[in-house]
Amino acid sequence: MTEPQQSTEPTDTTVQGDETAGPSKNELKKRAKAAEKERKAAEKAQKQKEESEKQAAAEVDVAAEFYGPLPLNQSQSRPNRQRVPISTLSARDGETVLLRARVHTSRGQAKMVFFNLRQRTDSVQAILSVAPGKVSKQMVKWAASITLESIVLVEGVIQKSPEPVKSASVDDVEVHVTKIFLIAGVEARLPFSLDDASRPESEVEAADAQFNRVLLETRLNNRVVDLRTQTNQAVFGIQAGIGDLFREFLSANGFIEIHSPKLQGAATESGASVFKVGYFKGTAYLAQSPQLAKQMAIAADFERVYEIGPVFRAEDSNTHRHLTEFIGLDLEMAIEEHYHEVLELLDNLFLSIFRGLRQRYSKEIAVIGKQFPAEEFKWREGPEGTLKLRFSEAIDLLVNDGVAREELDDINTENEKRLGRIIKAKYDTDYFIIDKFPMALRPFYTMPDPQDPTLSNSYDFFMRGEEILSGAQRIHDPTLLAEKMKSKGVEPESMQGYLDAFRVGCPPHGGGGIGLERVVMLFLKLNNIRRASLFPRDPKRLEP
Amino acid sequence: MTEPQQSTEPTDTTVQGDETAGPSKNELKKRAKAAEKERKAAEKAQKQKEESEKQAAAEVDVAAEFYGPLPLNQSQSRPNRQRVPISTLSARDGETVLLRARVHTSRGQAKMVFFNLRQRTDSVQAILSVAPGKVSKQMVKWAASITLESIVLVEGVIQKSPEPVKSASVDDVEVHVTKIFLIAGVEARLPFSLDDASRPESEVEAADAQFNRVLLETRLNNRVVDLRTQTNQAVFGIQAGIGDLFREFLSANGFIEIHSPKLQGAATESGASVFKVGYFKGTAYLAQSPQLAKQMAIAADFERVYEIGPVFRAEDSNTHRHLTEFIGLDLEMAIEEHYHEVLELLDNLFLSIFRGLRQRYSKEIAVIGKQFPAEEFKWREGPEGTLKLRFSEAIDLLVNDGVAREELDDINTENEKRLGRIIKAKYDTDYFIIDKFPMALRPFYTMPDPQDPTLSNSYDFFMRGEEILSGAQRIHDPTLLAEKMKSKGVEPESMQGYLDAFRVGCPPHGGGGIGLERVVMLFLKLNNIRRASLFPRDPKRLEP
Repeated sequence: MTEPQQSTEPTDTTVQGDETAGPSKNELKKRAKAAEKERKAAEKAQKQKEESEKQAAAEVDVAAEFYGPLPLNQSQSRPNRQRVPISTLSARDGETVLLRARVHTSRGQAKMVFFNLRQRTDSVQAILSVAPGKVSKQMVKWAASITLESIVLVEGVIQKSPEPVKSASVDDVEVHVTKIFLIAGVEARLPFSLDDASRPESEVEAADAQFNRVLLETRLNNRVVDLRTQTNQAVFGIQAGIGDLFREFLSANGFIEIHSPKLQGAATESGASVFKVGYFKGTAYLAQSPQLAKQMAIAADFERVYEIGPVFRAEDSNTHRHLTEFIGLDLEMAIEEHYHEVLELLDNLFLSIFRGLRQRYSKEIAVIGKQFPAEEFKWREGPEGTLKLRFSEAIDLLVNDGVAREELDDINTENEKRLGRIIKAKYDTDYFIIDKFPMALRPFYTMPDPQDPTLSNSYDFFMRGEEILSGAQRIHDPTLLAEKMKSKGVEPESMQGYLDAFRVGCPPHGGGGIGLERVVMLFLKLNNIRRASLFPRDPKRLEP
Repeated sequence: MTEPQQSTEPTDTTVQGDETAGPSKNELKKRAKAAEKERKAAEKAQKQKEESEKQAAAEVDVAAEFYGPLPLNQSQSRPNRQRVPISTLSARDGETVLLRARVHTSRGQAKMVFFNLRQRTDSVQAILSVAPGKVSKQMVKWAASITLESIVLVEGVIQKSPEPVKSASVDDVEVHVTKIFLIAGVEARLPFSLDDASRPESEVEAADAQFNRVLLETRLNNRVVDLRTQTNQAVFGIQAGIGDLFREFLSANGFIEIHSPKLQGAATESGASVFKVGYFKGTAYLAQSPQLAKQMAIAADFERVYEIGPVFRAEDSNTHRHLTEFIGLDLEMAIEEHYHEVLELLDNLFLSIFRGLRQRYSKEIAVIGKQFPAEEFKWREGPEGTLKLRFSEAIDLLVNDGVAREELDDINTENEKRLGRIIKAKYDTDYFIIDKFPMALRPFYTMPDPQDPTLSNSYDFFMRGEEILSGAQRIHDPTLLAEKMKSKGVEPESMQGYLDAFRVGCPPHGGGGIGLERVVMLFLKLNNIRRASLFPRDPKRLEP
């Protein structure tokens, strides 16, 4: 932090007398006169010096009181003076307020500075202008030199603005600054301006060269600055909101939260694509889902459990929708009669999340829409309910649309998106469920269909033509489970602890896992999953 | 699953006529008579056979209708018959109900079976006895053979019990069973009985040899069965409850939830005791806390953030209070005037959790107290508030108690417990705060005290004499931060992304991290942290 320019020390005005040898009487008289003169001069000088020092001290005091940097460690005193949010300023016309904010923009003129001060998604205009006895030229000069993105503490009077301030979210009032202090400065060159980072993506695409386009790569390399945009403040508000809505719905439906270990003794589930960890003198593996643990929790009588936690995928895929680490919203529940109990609960969970987002986060959705224009996310309400198709019906839709049936053993990413478009056109929904996947496409622990063993009691959920949930009824019988393991090339001995959970009695159960970042990306149409992760991880990125 | 014994097929009673050559008229007459007789006999036999088959079919139907194993895959039909919780049975006197439960105990007599049926922390007595036309001997025999811990579906009539049933949590009614089906059997020998696993720890300690003591090691090796005890059902209810209370308080105080990556590009914070991960062709490290990320979130304007997630510690310590993976409840917030804002918020957070546990989980606390007897956890309420000591005052308490001052550069585990006892005796509280730790004992990112640079703006929170939270104001100035890094032997270049976050302006801030399992262990006095973790991980345990 740089010290502000302060008044200079006055120069010493003391006069030194000449020294000569053998003085006459006249000379002595002269000297006495001179000494007297000198004494007086010294006295005067001393007075002047004192005056000057006093004045200087006074000026320093003024600076410390009205402007300048605050001490680095702010925990020195606690006056308990309330600092107000910018969002409340419209209601404070005439009040003197204190607020902490970032300098979003600043524009200095001869005797005044205009600031745009920012707090997260809110901003307000602030004006500092020279006023005799209150605001000095030096103060204005100092304030004008504050670098963008610095954090300041401002005292000012709230006044109605003569006309709406276009650049500020609070546009009907402005702050007339009386004091301004620097809390934290910026010591690095900003990688990009917040305004550039906030431009609509379509605008950017339309005129690459004209605008300072901020590439995703640049943003992610400088994520701390990137995250300060209104858009990103809103994105991560919504990410947190989805977690809240997930928990609220499940708590109300008798679920309890569990925490299962991410360090596992064996490379489970598929054997492939797990990260190896050095574990003291041995090896551990990072869990690629809480699948095994949550099923074991069901065998342990917890009945209905959910978990929110990181899952790790060692897949070397650099697509727009894959991360090596993401947040899984997982749940598992005992079944009474039929696995459609699970499917329906999951459907109601999603509807509850969609409704909650629309109700609680309309402001944030609108803010994000400015940078990422998107048709509003649509789902079906009312008695007809969510569109549920069987896998075979989804295939038929694709075949009727011109896809060759031969290439539809599975639905690849491209056909998934195509199916999304077909369904959007036909049913006007961005959200649907596909049930009854072929057994061959699902993991070993999936329960086969009781009528047709080539099919399974499993389902996927889709948003805007991309999979966001995969789930199924699980096999709870240890004999059938061991058999299916073998048929999929998994050695039952390698998963003894898991198998044992079913040997001691486990109720029929099912569940599903949701990718949090995918829900955020697809609901808001952010087009790249990295935008929905605070500090994303992919095969090429481990920093910041 | 074994098929129940069913009625045997009836033998064929059809009579075959003799065949002779050259019959006389009389003979013919005789024959006609015989044929007539034969026809009648055949008719009768046919009738008998039909009757018998009908009867056999009826008996088979009775078995399938009244008892036997259900098909493995229960997703075959969906009659939508409500299954009730045991906890509601007292209010259902006279009703016929359907319920799914575990066979906790079973005792067969000549013509009846007594069951104790269990659902999590609830249980009820059920009786099946022979009743002509309703319950056959075979049905009773089959039901008596159901192994303990099997899951059954029972239909029965609720009746007032003649006297309170001591062994059941619902003791005023019993279930008179009319139908019983096996949902899932037990195919392995149980490692221990649930009753043995539920004995009070003091009783076990007092009479090791007399009781089938279930060692912690045995429990953890067979965690799925161990978790079914009433105690463990309650422990993990409370663990989930602490998470809920943590989030509720912080949401109400303007915090948002974040999710930071556990995979990091560098071995940060201390350089030691982190797990190494093979990351494609390179190396990653598991985060030993979300410290860096949550501070960066503050630099990114999120103001107040919290995270609930796994943290990893590669310390080879097998104590009662260390895990290699545990759940961190972390928070970080911008400071306005003084770091005591953070300390006070954290204090209010804990008080809110303690009060919430007492209000919402008194039943669970009582259940756990039966197996782990403990003095109720005490904290100070009212105007005097939580006991807050300076580090130097805590040292004085220990010195006055007889500890040599020379050995008190730091407070080791033993002295920590001693301090807890001193404070409990003097202030009657199990919960207190120590503020102002020496700078030498804290990590590089800790803000020094502005008056005395040998001290720091940092604090620890304690429950029953053990540390459960560590926190501080952090250094938000990049120059001072780099300097402190060097002085603690950390190369600033190795943490470029972290340092950069402060170069672009970061407000003063502070926070803390809580170990969830420690709070559970200490609030309930479980004496070993492994009991507070669903599937604990330590240097010697990665399974199950």
